[in-house]
Amino acid sequence: MTYKERLTSIRTEMRQRGIAAYIIPSSDPHISEYLPERFKCIAWTSGFTGSAGTLVITEDFAGLWTDARYFVQATEQLAGTGFELVKLQVQGKPEYVTWLAGKLNEDDCVAFDGNLASVGLAHSLEQELHPLGIRIQGDADLLEPIWLDRPELPKQPAYLIDTATTGKSAEDKIAEIRGMMKEKKRQAHLISSLDDLAWVLNIRGADVNCNPVVLGFLLITLDDAVLFIDRAKLSESDLQELGHSGIKVDDYHQVYEKLGQLKSKNILLDPKRTCFAIYDAVPYDTEVHEDMNPSTWLKAIKNPTEISHMRNAMIKDGVALTKFFKWLEEQVGTGTLTELSITEKLQEFRSQLDGFVDISFDTIAGYREHGALPHYKATEQSNATLEPSGLLLVDSGGQYNDGTTDITRVVSLGNITPAECDDYTVVLKGTIEGSLAVFPKGTRGYQIDAITRQSIWETYRDYGHGTGHGVGFFLNVHEGPHVFNKSATDVPVVDGMISSIEPGLYREGQYGIRIENLVLSKIVHANEFGEFMDFETLTVCYIATDLVNRSLLDKRHIDWLNNYNKWVFEQLSPFLDAEHNAWLEEKTKPI
Amino acid sequence: MTYKERLTSIRTEMRQRGIAAYIIPSSDPHISEYLPERFKCIAWTSGFTGSAGTLVITEDFAGLWTDARYFVQATEQLAGTGFELVKLQVQGKPEYVTWLAGKLNEDDCVAFDGNLASVGLAHSLEQELHPLGIRIQGDADLLEPIWLDRPELPKQPAYLIDTATTGKSAEDKIAEIRGMMKEKKRQAHLISSLDDLAWVLNIRGADVNCNPVVLGFLLITLDDAVLFIDRAKLSESDLQELGHSGIKVDDYHQVYEKLGQLKSKNILLDPKRTCFAIYDAVPYDTEVHEDMNPSTWLKAIKNPTEISHMRNAMIKDGVALTKFFKWLEEQVGTGTLTELSITEKLQEFRSQLDGFVDISFDTIAGYREHGALPHYKATEQSNATLEPSGLLLVDSGGQYNDGTTDITRVVSLGNITPAECDDYTVVLKGTIEGSLAVFPKGTRGYQIDAITRQSIWETYRDYGHGTGHGVGFFLNVHEGPHVFNKSATDVPVVDGMISSIEPGLYREGQYGIRIENLVLSKIVHANEFGEFMDFETLTVCYIATDLVNRSLLDKRHIDWLNNYNKWVFEQLSPFLDAEHNAWLEEKTKPI
Repeated sequence: MTYKERLTSIRTEMRQRGIAAYIIPSSDPHISEYLPERFKCIAWTSGFTGSAGTLVITEDFAGLWTDARYFVQATEQLAGTGFELVKLQVQGKPEYVTWLAGKLNEDDCVAFDGNLASVGLAHSLEQELHPLGIRIQGDADLLEPIWLDRPELPKQPAYLIDTATTGKSAEDKIAEIRGMMKEKKRQAHLISSLDDLAWVLNIRGADVNCNPVVLGFLLITLDDAVLFIDRAKLSESDLQELGHSGIKVDDYHQVYEKLGQLKSKNILLDPKRTCFAIYDAVPYDTEVHEDMNPSTWLKAIKNPTEISHMRNAMIKDGVALTKFFKWLEEQVGTGTLTELSITEKLQEFRSQLDGFVDISFDTIAGYREHGALPHYKATEQSNATLEPSGLLLVDSGGQYNDGTTDITRVVSLGNITPAECDDYTVVLKGTIEGSLAVFPKGTRGYQIDAITRQSIWETYRDYGHGTGHGVGFFLNVHEGPHVFNKSATDVPVVDGMISSIEPGLYREGQYGIRIENLVLSKIVHANEFGEFMDFETLTVCYIATDLVNRSLLDKRHIDWLNNYNKWVFEQLSPFLDAEHNAWLEEKTKPI
Repeated sequence: MTYKERLTSIRTEMRQRGIAAYIIPSSDPHISEYLPERFKCIAWTSGFTGSAGTLVITEDFAGLWTDARYFVQATEQLAGTGFELVKLQVQGKPEYVTWLAGKLNEDDCVAFDGNLASVGLAHSLEQELHPLGIRIQGDADLLEPIWLDRPELPKQPAYLIDTATTGKSAEDKIAEIRGMMKEKKRQAHLISSLDDLAWVLNIRGADVNCNPVVLGFLLITLDDAVLFIDRAKLSESDLQELGHSGIKVDDYHQVYEKLGQLKSKNILLDPKRTCFAIYDAVPYDTEVHEDMNPSTWLKAIKNPTEISHMRNAMIKDGVALTKFFKWLEEQVGTGTLTELSITEKLQEFRSQLDGFVDISFDTIAGYREHGALPHYKATEQSNATLEPSGLLLVDSGGQYNDGTTDITRVVSLGNITPAECDDYTVVLKGTIEGSLAVFPKGTRGYQIDAITRQSIWETYRDYGHGTGHGVGFFLNVHEGPHVFNKSATDVPVVDGMISSIEPGLYREGQYGIRIENLVLSKIVHANEFGEFMDFETLTVCYIATDLVNRSLLDKRHIDWLNNYNKWVFEQLSPFLDAEHNAWLEEKTKPI
């Protein structure tokens, strides 16, 4: 079945059911970012494999709305499919809702599968389209009759991790959540988001590539907690331990029915982290209070145990990367390296480390023009051979049982132009400005974003993605609720949060640059004006200096760079042999 | 009647009507910031005269929620009134709603006067309190039976201004609004906000101190436009001209009844700029679509005629300020000057200028510790005598028939300490950083705010108010929808907007510093990364250099300061006599 045939089949279904517009979000019943195979509906329908986007299909138009990170990739992948790329102005905004408002007529019906749409999206549709007399249908899975070989739900084993690792027991976490529920007079709360569930119960799994999570729902009332999960995934002893922690276990699919039988007067649901089908299952007389999951907030603030483990994971990651970049430098002249082969080699270096579980996302190894695709993933078709010339961007990370990493470096393979050095230096200056930021506790991520971009904007450059994201503790590499980007995300940044700082620059058809570290926000000063915070850089990997145009940096940037590289050497040298130490010492010499 | 007696009377009314909590917002039926005397309910009830705050009264607590600009003033004014100051974390946020959620019980009733609460506030109350079973009553004017000498509505004359001044006719503006209505399929639209009404109809009045507006509502349908106004305020010829422009005139008080008879299928109302009583008057079967007034957006983007007039008004204002500061310097040694006397003198200098209509807000002349009150207004009681020593902060502005101005300068009256110079320099650096900002078109005000604050935050300093606000064209000195502050206000900054940049620093009991210019945002560069904008400074008044600690500034700041002062001299010297020119030349010498 070609993509065009799939589109035709969907339109046939739409006509039969009287649907004027059909929306396919990139999501699953847990509103995940990374999806189990069963829910890769956009890839199946249109061929687009990016991690963010929405398909909207009408009788005469079929579009993929996605953001700047994916413009080039989407253009390539959508060619000949019948789908057109619609460029989002703002990452993550459902701009197609406004488009639908202009496109549709009174009495038209917009439909979607309620398992794939967040409550928030359903509300947006209602708010914008209902006043125009457009009907909304939230239970239409049009792929079911068409996608005949659709994969089953994943069945990977799951396991509990201990308090020595997590720093807090599931009982304590649930007690904390109940405290927050009581404060706001909530009687029940359903957690759908998989990383929240994993954090609360100290449970990990492998149901989603790169994300150590297990499919499930957790219903918490003031005196009860029920985990809806495929029991077969858990060992007997883990099931017993859950029981000892006061957590009942029920079947994954039972959640809708049990929710329908809820006796509580009200329930707390997170509109961004709950699907519409769950919302729809709540009894009519139960008030739904929409607010962020308490666990989403609690999880973002790492405890001292988590932070100490994370520091350790960062050193391991730095060891792997040092070995990798040394190996790369030595091998690149052979002409045998490709984007795929170095991706494999990097994973090999990581997997040699104690506690390695998986990579934390698909490695982006983008040589030359491939680096200009911020979320590039090499395929057999695209796989470029590395020459001793040009820029290579490597964005990668690991899942260790003591932490999650995410780092981007750009290195020169030789013959670099002054324009490349200038772009590299401008981006590096942004990374440094973000890293040096001082700000009052509670400052929003959109302000950190501006501080990081300011010096880049001054040169009339910009990048079409966010400046940074939260990172989980042995959990998802993208973790809310805080985010450093241009959007009006009204979440305070407080001490204990771990985030990335990763400005970039992309010259289409030429090369891409991104320099990314993870940072920990800490309180550094308090006075009559409040509590002030700064960032401690956690990532331990040298930043290449041979690409730096020193004249574009101020003294504060040069000092930061030299101090950082010196610190990297000090941190890693005890774990490296003499040969690697000598190599790294050279790489970390002050400029 | 003392404030305590007033509070007791309100509580008696509350008991009689079964009201558990009563909310008095600082507002009027037009959701104005500056209020006609009749609507100064907070001042009458509690004695607090600040321009932002909310009273919340329960049986056992009476509080004023206000922001950092007013903490000191509120503490003084509320002493002995029975009201307590509750400090807002975030300026403008209705944080008392969360407080009420925790305080009240199921079936309790929260009430307010629907003429004083915005639709948005009513929705917030509903969203937060309804799930808890708390009832909300939006038509309770408890002051009516108590406030016996409550002033009538103002009756100042109003007048039309011509297209040579405004750059666009009322017909064209209404046509533009109708275009935006049609695009979103809206059939009717009611404008309540007085500055929007003034802008659309090119009408000005004097119903509110400092704001050249007239009380009224404007109902626009696709083929009709009705102005609800006290006809007696308009001349016969202006009434005729309105008629020629296709605008019908009806009585001010008729708006509720006529709205109730509306035949349109839907109506566009701005939830932030429409009171709940108006919302409540819309027929049940008319869909209310809540969105920003189109005029609020259109008005913010100044046209070339307005911009050119504004430049002229700025020069006039600079002339008045130059004369004022020279006079001040010469007179301060006499020991006869006071905060009130210099306020009067400054107004005298402004009123000598062509086209002067009024001041644009109450002048803030804060000597020494009074400068630490960001919205200080000298009274007979507080009025300080100026000595030839210490810092003086003067924040003032004018309404001219060709523009509105707003400027803050701090000057030394003598014997300045190094700490004062350091604080002054840190604030100046913030003003300069904001003025030098380069950013993509559409950047949000919260990002401009961060760029302005960054260098101030680096010194562990901060200020509790916004960095800047939009400014009207011969209209309100505070004009939306864009604003430069920490809040998540999701409004793009585009070319043609006029805004203030005004960082500050306040040392309670010692002194305050604020340095404010108005700037015009302009597109300065376009390339593959988008359109980039910067700010052109419009304010023409020297910035004192004797308070600058040069060692705290980088070369770019010093260059900006010297260039700015040089430009000020060049702009103003043609309008000054030899003596003033000599004085200003000295003040604007490079450092």
